[in-house]
Amino acid sequence: MRILSAIDSFKGSMTSKQANNVVKEALEPEHQVTTFPIADGGEGTVEAFLDVLPGKLIEEPVTGPTGETERCYYGWFEKEALSIIEVAEAAGITKVDRDKRHPRYTTSYGVGEQIMSALERGMKKCIIGLGGSATVDGGIGLLQALGVRFLNKHQEELPTLPIDLAAVDSVDTTHLDPRLYDVEFIVGSDVENPLLGENGATYVFGPQKGLRDHELICHEKSMQHFAERISKVTRTDYKHTEGSGAAGGIGFCLYAFFNATPKSGFQLLAEKGGLSQLIENADLVITGEGKFDTQSIQGKVPVGISRLAGKLDVPTIVFAAIIDDGLIDLKEESISAVLPIVDAPMSVDEAIKNGPALLRKAVKRSFNLISNDTFSDIP
Amino acid sequence: MRILSAIDSFKGSMTSKQANNVVKEALEPEHQVTTFPIADGGEGTVEAFLDVLPGKLIEEPVTGPTGETERCYYGWFEKEALSIIEVAEAAGITKVDRDKRHPRYTTSYGVGEQIMSALERGMKKCIIGLGGSATVDGGIGLLQALGVRFLNKHQEELPTLPIDLAAVDSVDTTHLDPRLYDVEFIVGSDVENPLLGENGATYVFGPQKGLRDHELICHEKSMQHFAERISKVTRTDYKHTEGSGAAGGIGFCLYAFFNATPKSGFQLLAEKGGLSQLIENADLVITGEGKFDTQSIQGKVPVGISRLAGKLDVPTIVFAAIIDDGLIDLKEESISAVLPIVDAPMSVDEAIKNGPALLRKAVKRSFNLISNDTFSDIP
Repeated sequence: MRILSAIDSFKGSMTSKQANNVVKEALEPEHQVTTFPIADGGEGTVEAFLDVLPGKLIEEPVTGPTGETERCYYGWFEKEALSIIEVAEAAGITKVDRDKRHPRYTTSYGVGEQIMSALERGMKKCIIGLGGSATVDGGIGLLQALGVRFLNKHQEELPTLPIDLAAVDSVDTTHLDPRLYDVEFIVGSDVENPLLGENGATYVFGPQKGLRDHELICHEKSMQHFAERISKVTRTDYKHTEGSGAAGGIGFCLYAFFNATPKSGFQLLAEKGGLSQLIENADLVITGEGKFDTQSIQGKVPVGISRLAGKLDVPTIVFAAIIDDGLIDLKEESISAVLPIVDAPMSVDEAIKNGPALLRKAVKRSFNLISNDTFSDIP
Repeated sequence: MRILSAIDSFKGSMTSKQANNVVKEALEPEHQVTTFPIADGGEGTVEAFLDVLPGKLIEEPVTGPTGETERCYYGWFEKEALSIIEVAEAAGITKVDRDKRHPRYTTSYGVGEQIMSALERGMKKCIIGLGGSATVDGGIGLLQALGVRFLNKHQEELPTLPIDLAAVDSVDTTHLDPRLYDVEFIVGSDVENPLLGENGATYVFGPQKGLRDHELICHEKSMQHFAERISKVTRTDYKHTEGSGAAGGIGFCLYAFFNATPKSGFQLLAEKGGLSQLIENADLVITGEGKFDTQSIQGKVPVGISRLAGKLDVPTIVFAAIIDDGLIDLKEESISAVLPIVDAPMSVDEAIKNGPALLRKAVKRSFNLISNDTFSDIP
């Protein structure tokens, strides 16, 4: 049987790639398994694209989130003149020790440097994955790296660090590299929060990035001030637009300056990786994720995949560690069966710890039923 | 598809009958489901036989375990002149309040009365299920009801209660109904313990039947004395025979007096209920039990069934709440797949509480894979 495995991550237990490999190992060589990685724009996005599209990893020294030089990578796809950058690299929260996390001391500057590096390679298209950033800088660092100058009311240029959004009086875009206007920017994000307001970057993501409760109001005010300055110079208004709050406001500045198009990580991978073609070449699609329920069915990667497979008349089965509402199948979304990976009463921690082994066994069990000659003889 | 459902009980969650009905409800009317009950000789054995063999329930007043008259039932199968008695009825532990449980004050007399009742109906064969008794009387009560007299050293007949095994000096079998010698006695039990010794009826089952720790040595001695008197009069020696300790020694007395044949509850049901024929008429056999592991594979009902099905070339799948060692299948025992019923991390208590719902969903999921037209088209 020709199988396409396109499993989302089991959060805390397996990455998408690991889960797909478990399926591959469980079913080969009896079956022919093609894997397709899933990424949501966060850590692992570049790796996932390199899995589906021929390209290379560019690793160069750039300014890390706290201002120190670090070697960070992005993906370069020469044929398409395409770069794929994940902010989790040059502005990643996992790169900053917990006690050093604070929006005043973390910048997205390195992400801008990566954009400039790719620009030098002839970039015409840039996909930026917006998950996993350490920053809530409204993208000021990124813009500085692209050549935008931020001046205070004394017409003095503001430094990269510490960040002081409230001090921005005017924005000088005369040094912004004009080639950037020829680049198509796409932001890959599963975050729908706007830049400002109670559902915005500061209030929702600020606390996990180091803002204390008493700093929230002040930071929101500074961000509001900064956003107005940007809106004025770009003659746009994305302050309350869905997704502008992604990556601490990087979404906002990419919308404002480059009219970036938002897409989900899955959509981007599906398009770039030729998912439809891969599904068409398969007899069966296997997908899944840690927790599968009907409540958030719209944004679910397995459902995105099963819909596509359904249109192509290829059956889909879903594996999950937690089948929240006891789903058996979801025929209306072309899912033939929703299958649990747990095989005994156990805690969530045990399920997470044993994820790969449980998935492997669950896949084997299912194939004992699906591809068993014993059953195919039955009328 | 023609399905035979023969699931053992999920202890504490579902009886065999309930589990089979869950399967039936989950798969009908799309499939044709025949159910086959499993019983281990304990409570529910008579009911299980009545499910597979045409017969009737005889309910009559007999001496209950504590000496009070109670209405108890046994199964009567006229055509075979067969009675099926479960000691869990007339000598059942669930009939005795916890604080009244004690081997000195609980008797198997009523079981003997049921045997005599069936004898009056023309019984030629008697199956006695030995699980769930309240007694550790070595079967003295049962024998008294059959007409055996137990005398002390003053040649006085001992009463039925309280029981004093140590006082038995001689055994008078002259009043034992001679028709009993023409009856074939079969004991149905999954207990392998002998009457005496550290693995015997007193030490292993005594405590749960009311013996205090300090009484164990004394009771074992009395049982030893009694067993010698019985062995002397019957010219047999079953004191250390496997299974003679079942039902507090009822096994022993049935061996000694009637050369009873031990069989497992499953074996008996399989024979009497024509299990082979039912399997042969099925496309697929579904079995299962609460906990399935490889350690106790020999005595497992699902394995007994799968072996039989394997010989008849009918595939078997097993459902279990706890798949202890992560079994996927057990091809050497003709089990095509071992399938979990849990569908999320949960406690054993939750799994027990939700057993029927979990089993129903697991069966439906599996049939989404087994009998899905979608998959049968796949090469």
